[in-house]
Amino acid sequence: MTTYFYKFPVTPQVFYKTKYTYALVNLKPIVPGHVLVVPFRRVARLKQLNAKESTDFIATVQLINEFIEKVYKADASNIAMQDGIAAGQSVPHVHCHIIPRYLKDGYGDHIYDLLEKHEADLNGFFQQVCRGRIVAADMDRHPRSMEEMEKEAKWLQGELEKFVKAREGEKEEEEGKKEGEGKKEGEGKKE
Amino acid sequence: MTTYFYKFPVTPQVFYKTKYTYALVNLKPIVPGHVLVVPFRRVARLKQLNAKESTDFIATVQLINEFIEKVYKADASNIAMQDGIAAGQSVPHVHCHIIPRYLKDGYGDHIYDLLEKHEADLNGFFQQVCRGRIVAADMDRHPRSMEEMEKEAKWLQGELEKFVKAREGEKEEEEGKKEGEGKKEGEGKKE
Repeated sequence: MTTYFYKFPVTPQVFYKTKYTYALVNLKPIVPGHVLVVPFRRVARLKQLNAKESTDFIATVQLINEFIEKVYKADASNIAMQDGIAAGQSVPHVHCHIIPRYLKDGYGDHIYDLLEKHEADLNGFFQQVCRGRIVAADMDRHPRSMEEMEKEAKWLQGELEKFVKAREGEKEEEEGKKEGEGKKEGEGKKE
Repeated sequence: MTTYFYKFPVTPQVFYKTKYTYALVNLKPIVPGHVLVVPFRRVARLKQLNAKESTDFIATVQLINEFIEKVYKADASNIAMQDGIAAGQSVPHVHCHIIPRYLKDGYGDHIYDLLEKHEADLNGFFQQVCRGRIVAADMDRHPRSMEEMEKEAKWLQGELEKFVKAREGEKEEEEGKKEGEGKKEGEGKKE
């Protein structure tokens, strides 16, 4: 089934899906690992998500944020939504930017200028794609090829599966330890 | 009960509380209506919120965002989290900025420069408050008095109560209409 970002098919860029939400790699990431989290239902504003959708959306942002920081060895993240045109939103479909940051990346607050330019580029890109061809909106960051994005999406998908499995393993181990401690406590009481 | 933002008491600034989350007015809002949404539990990173907390957090962001846009007659909002020091986080307690925006506010992407400066100011402010006095970190935006913030928080609290009541009324009306339509359909079938 084709995944749409607004009216544009983005299936090869998607690396994670839940019932209500998906995550995709960028055409022109500001930094490596800059990804988007998007609800499947095409609404423009955050307030339009129903309770199930917004709960799933934030859980997905949490998961993808933690995963991206780990896989890109980042120190922190900017998590940002341009909610409406007047806030710089270029594609009228709710989306959250996750941008990995480093203590020494040197971007400082300039990262947000780049984010605004990114939104403008997205808009330009999709307008061009709509007319059946891709044209670079600026000369600084060339749009990546579909092959490159698909390759990254597949790599992230594999890494994410490992990440989720490892986390589940850790949880089970923790629960096992708790049970063990519970038994020990129980044993202690018997003595 | 005192509400804390990191280790700083902010009770007079709070205008909304749920079980897990609260919303507060700013010492130095970038624009009127710039508020913060914060989970009660003091953790630094978004990933540390458990499922109940993050679900309540996003529901609160949705509500406060919609409310602030309505009460400040805004067109859109920037919703932003600096998740970690390397992303510009100044207070190590998860917080989400909601910044009302206007089609003609003239800020453009400069809004994010202001946001970064705001985080730096917050940090400076709280460090000063910690030493028992408030000192303006810059001459452009003077910190507001506690009285002014308390007055705004009380006003927002009252407006929010009205907003929530009106929304509940609208929902009931919609449900009433649906029931009415259901009856009509039922009647139609009988004929």
